[in-house]
Amino acid sequence: MSSTIGNKIKVSVFGESHGPAIGMVMDAPPAGLKLDFEEISRELSRRAPGNDPTATKRKEPDIPEFLSGIKDGVTTGAPLAAIIRNTGHHSNDYTELYRKPRPSHADYAANIHFGGFNDLAGGGHFSGRLTAPIVIAGAILKQYLKTKGITIGGHILSIGSKRDLSFDSVEVSEQQLEKLSHMHFPVINLTSEEKMRAEISEATENLDSVGGVLEIAATGLPTGLGGPMFDGVENIISKAVFGIPAVKGIEFGDGFGISSLHGSEANDAMQYKDGKVCCKTNHCGGITGGITNGMPLIFRTALKPTPSISRTQETVDLYDKCNTDLKIKGRHDPCIVLRALPAVEAITAIALSNLLSEEALF
Amino acid sequence: MSSTIGNKIKVSVFGESHGPAIGMVMDAPPAGLKLDFEEISRELSRRAPGNDPTATKRKEPDIPEFLSGIKDGVTTGAPLAAIIRNTGHHSNDYTELYRKPRPSHADYAANIHFGGFNDLAGGGHFSGRLTAPIVIAGAILKQYLKTKGITIGGHILSIGSKRDLSFDSVEVSEQQLEKLSHMHFPVINLTSEEKMRAEISEATENLDSVGGVLEIAATGLPTGLGGPMFDGVENIISKAVFGIPAVKGIEFGDGFGISSLHGSEANDAMQYKDGKVCCKTNHCGGITGGITNGMPLIFRTALKPTPSISRTQETVDLYDKCNTDLKIKGRHDPCIVLRALPAVEAITAIALSNLLSEEALF
Amino acid sequence: MSSTIGNKIKVSVFGESHGPAIGMVMDAPPAGLKLDFEEISRELSRRAPGNDPTATKRKEPDIPEFLSGIKDGVTTGAPLAAIIRNTGHHSNDYTELYRKPRPSHADYAANIHFGGFNDLAGGGHFSGRLTAPIVIAGAILKQYLKTKGITIGGHILSIGSKRDLSFDSVEVSEQQLEKLSHMHFPVINLTSEEKMRAEISEATENLDSVGGVLEIAATGLPTGLGGPMFDGVENIISKAVFGIPAVKGIEFGDGFGISSLHGSEANDAMQYKDGKVCCKTNHCGGITGGITNGMPLIFRTALKPTPSISRTQETVDLYDKCNTDLKIKGRHDPCIVLRALPAVEAITAIALSNLLSEEALF
Amino acid sequence: MSSTIGNKIKVSVFGESHGPAIGMVMDAPPAGLKLDFEEISRELSRRAPGNDPTATKRKEPDIPEFLSGIKDGVTTGAPLAAIIRNTGHHSNDYTELYRKPRPSHADYAANIHFGGFNDLAGGGHFSGRLTAPIVIAGAILKQYLKTKGITIGGHILSIGSKRDLSFDSVEVSEQQLEKLSHMHFPVINLTSEEKMRAEISEATENLDSVGGVLEIAATGLPTGLGGPMFDGVENIISKAVFGIPAVKGIEFGDGFGISSLHGSEANDAMQYKDGKVCCKTNHCGGITGGITNGMPLIFRTALKPTPSISRTQETVDLYDKCNTDLKIKGRHDPCIVLRALPAVEAITAIALSNLLSEEALF
Repeated sequence: MSSTIGNKIKVSVFGESHGPAIGMVMDAPPAGLKLDFEEISRELSRRAPGNDPTATKRKEPDIPEFLSGIKDGVTTGAPLAAIIRNTGHHSNDYTELYRKPRPSHADYAANIHFGGFNDLAGGGHFSGRLTAPIVIAGAILKQYLKTKGITIGGHILSIGSKRDLSFDSVEVSEQQLEKLSHMHFPVINLTSEEKMRAEISEATENLDSVGGVLEIAATGLPTGLGGPMFDGVENIISKAVFGIPAVKGIEFGDGFGISSLHGSEANDAMQYKDGKVCCKTNHCGGITGGITNGMPLIFRTALKPTPSISRTQETVDLYDKCNTDLKIKGRHDPCIVLRALPAVEAITAIALSNLLSEEALF
Repeated sequence: MSSTIGNKIKVSVFGESHGPAIGMVMDAPPAGLKLDFEEISRELSRRAPGNDPTATKRKEPDIPEFLSGIKDGVTTGAPLAAIIRNTGHHSNDYTELYRKPRPSHADYAANIHFGGFNDLAGGGHFSGRLTAPIVIAGAILKQYLKTKGITIGGHILSIGSKRDLSFDSVEVSEQQLEKLSHMHFPVINLTSEEKMRAEISEATENLDSVGGVLEIAATGLPTGLGGPMFDGVENIISKAVFGIPAVKGIEFGDGFGISSLHGSEANDAMQYKDGKVCCKTNHCGGITGGITNGMPLIFRTALKPTPSISRTQETVDLYDKCNTDLKIKGRHDPCIVLRALPAVEAITAIALSNLLSEEALF
Repeated sequence: MSSTIGNKIKVSVFGESHGPAIGMVMDAPPAGLKLDFEEISRELSRRAPGNDPTATKRKEPDIPEFLSGIKDGVTTGAPLAAIIRNTGHHSNDYTELYRKPRPSHADYAANIHFGGFNDLAGGGHFSGRLTAPIVIAGAILKQYLKTKGITIGGHILSIGSKRDLSFDSVEVSEQQLEKLSHMHFPVINLTSEEKMRAEISEATENLDSVGGVLEIAATGLPTGLGGPMFDGVENIISKAVFGIPAVKGIEFGDGFGISSLHGSEANDAMQYKDGKVCCKTNHCGGITGGITNGMPLIFRTALKPTPSISRTQETVDLYDKCNTDLKIKGRHDPCIVLRALPAVEAITAIALSNLLSEEALF
Repeated sequence: MSSTIGNKIKVSVFGESHGPAIGMVMDAPPAGLKLDFEEISRELSRRAPGNDPTATKRKEPDIPEFLSGIKDGVTTGAPLAAIIRNTGHHSNDYTELYRKPRPSHADYAANIHFGGFNDLAGGGHFSGRLTAPIVIAGAILKQYLKTKGITIGGHILSIGSKRDLSFDSVEVSEQQLEKLSHMHFPVINLTSEEKMRAEISEATENLDSVGGVLEIAATGLPTGLGGPMFDGVENIISKAVFGIPAVKGIEFGDGFGISSLHGSEANDAMQYKDGKVCCKTNHCGGITGGITNGMPLIFRTALKPTPSISRTQETVDLYDKCNTDLKIKGRHDPCIVLRALPAVEAITAIALSNLLSEEALF
């Protein structure tokens, strides 16, 4: 059981949605990194609620306070801690949730895991709000990766039944990723936005929610990163990405699609291009044998619809040990896919920074 | 970079396909476990080549020798080491592969990672043969999990375009899993076998290969296993499963399918049944908030077609720095999906045994 | 490089002496532990400066703020974060130290390690002040250990050439340890205090400092804790204790003294006493083969004299690349042995709590 | 509980004294290291019994078989496994030890830890014989460190009451360490050997054993290795060294001796010498703030007298729950200090190689 990730650059996340503060300690960032604090705030605002009609109207300013590890705006190499004070949450009565766990929420499983001592208010430590410290850590490490020529970006591949174009897995570029990261609603085919927003609006009107898929790419990775078996690129990224709430699947390259192909279709022919070794196609998503092969890293991750919906749902009454109904109060995101994008990018930055620091020895 | 997995029960895998031996050290198994060595051999024979027309005709006896950690057939609690001697491999000339890496194999990426010092013969440490020690470890830990009432099993969900029925995610039972584990070609709908075998035969005839999807279930898991964020059930299992060669994706419960659902469709209503809390459906695959919720654990994993095909393929000549062609010699599996099943089950046993040993503290 | 300790209960320490705050995240404490906050404050005051004439006159209130992991005064089982705001430090000019490293301080080695980006003000992340978050973590885990019947305590065994009595390694009791922990100057032979204070006063008058030895004991440990080789009790405690600044040695049981004994003198004869297995003597300090044997755990740790002395010292000028002199300004502890005691006890509590959670599997 | 050490270069040790084989897996050594196998054998012969009158007369050939990770005598970068077959042990009856644990042996504590399932024959996994795989790993990593200009060596500082000269902590050199490593009985003052041998002979005649102290040095370490708090040089080395059976204490630099000094005596004045920054003295043993400072690394470790003595000793009968006597049969080392030296050097090589691979990030 752990809210800490990374072997070399350990990020330890703490806090509950309605506690005094949430935050993270990074032990330790690379030394000598001049931080762009505006960029960190920009990443946080991508994740913040209240900024888009698709998301909850709750306002959370999400202003980080940096407590350590920085001198004159530059990382010292010592552990870097940052916190965000929790404000503005209504003191709803959450005690009902100990009695009536919300379907498909962590409530029941967490109750058993923690012996009933866990904090359920606002989702407690399971709240999506805990992705804010992850975004801070990711924003710092994106800046580190930038100094190594590595860029991470992504877009909404689908919301419900509405689907955007996929990345061109060979041609995806730093420029495209940068552009996407500055879009309010990052899609490749601009006409996708309206259809996706309509899908979300419809869910909202129906007191319902809807899921989606994010597609992430990283360019500029050195060839040879990762390793065989259990600390390869796919192992490390998948372990990290399942740390983002609502994630239920991950696939690299052609992923599940590759399972229905023949080897002659799925194999990526190799070639020299501009004097460099590369592949003509990128079905493997930039990874062979757990190791980067010089092509862009591509993966997709599936998010379930947020389980907090305003409809009456069937659940149990753990006190009276009988079946009952539950109507969840409060304002909730009808679709967290858009807000999850910076969090998935951030956790990818944490994973890749650790992989980068774990080079093979000679 | 690591071929070691597990925090509490560490399994360290070693060996190359054409070296003196492959093996593993488990540091350390639970003490006092009476081992069923025939069962370990049976699991190994499920993975062994030469036992099914879909697989390579290479014969590898795969007889394990246990070196430590066992007294009178019972685990002592000290590290348990087992090796399998490599025999019968032809001394093919593999030096060409340093010059001409095989498309979609680890050859090129590994060359860069290891500075050219790695062993390419038979795939070296990247060989699918390295799943044999994993199967030994998994067979031991399956026996441990059995003492806790936990059963792991699986079936071939698809090969190429041919698809078996899925598990009934609510009703899947220990009995069904046991039965599947004793089938030569484990499928739920028995008519699937013939179609799948035809798909593999066709690939073989076309000097091609084909991929597939495995579906795995575990029953009897205690509620409350796992935890929030980065050491939850999905994190730990996904990190482990990507250690099996050819795996390109993993999804839990409805996985990617859940992303197109609405919350009202995807949420698992809770109820009391026979006096116990459970869910009416199991879209979440037995895990909410990273924690087991008492329902069967269900996941699927996608395997790419084996990249070793007998057709001529385009690659590069790293010595002359030009494009070239390559025709891979030797006998290869046209489809490794069947042989991968016991390996995926085994790595799941390693992951679950570790999760089981990491209970929350009180 | 890491300021994080523990496998199961990870304590991640952050902060610099003159930064905004210091603190720690514990990922995660046992759930359901009712915290005695006054006891935490009492432990912090044992460590705080300004409370004893032997220590620096700097006043640091050391009031912890708890940010997460606690509900109604009880641990939730989620990560527990606590911070202490830094106040009242004078904005001395520390830039000279980048140029002229203090002898036997971390200055020079840290400069090289961190490429000169580290924060030297007040010692930065190397400051003894960072033991305050360790004391918070230890105070929490002492309360946890108490619920398991385990007590940790210690006394000043020596300061300079003045020596207290050693623990009776067989008879040391919970009561004695509790009593010592409430003494302002914990010694067994009460006449030691005056002699030791005189030794410190003399050092102060001579613009000098003086070292000492702490002796720690733990009672109530279950037999069988620890394990062979690298995660035994001695391995885990020694790794932890060297995390306290100024520690230069550790020994268990008779330690270095045992090396001059014969086996017939050093062996601890076993016996039944009051129906329980125990030893007649305790030369091994309660540990054999890395495992607790039911006798009290005893170890001693050597602390060097604080290197900050007011005398002129020889050092180098790293800018002009020549030899030079340095006179360290500010108020410093002439002897940190007394203040280090609660920190060594605290880190022992962290180590033992982790060992307790790592029981052998069956 | 773990017989695995190292974060980056993990060494996993397995085997029991009287099982089929002992061995280790190194996951993974640096790639491209050309191995000197004669040197590995020479290190093993330093540890082997039967080579010196001070040690047991048991003959163990200790011939390693390398199973993986090596191609044409060069490390591939994949996990390197090596085993040593156990031969020639007499099938003594060890079952009595489950009933009557040997005083100051692991027997009783291990029985409780492993629930009585552990193997006591020949000491099982607690046997000093398990240092042979450690010596193999250390011999490989010494060769790696050599390529980085780092040399590890040591000598017997004391046996019983007889003491050798200490290293000159400033002047100790690669040449001196090399010379010591080739001496049959490594001491600095050659007259020490005879006195120490007499002490051992006397113990043997008295059916007794005797302990001692080893002093280890490493030269050529880069400045800046290690880090603050819990992964510093002292933390990592002490955790490793306590993995060698019989170790009861460790001290760096002046160690316990420094605790009775004043700061003005203990501080190492800095200077430029031959254009390089160094210290005039080396009381801190080459480490300040957990980080190497460019001076030789010096530490000492105390070993208890081997608890296996031929005299009748008091112990308990765990079956009849009463006090009893025990006379240990078999041939035992009257003094393991000489044979422990290569093991302590080896574990130091493992620790330093890991530290070397954990450089600070920029």
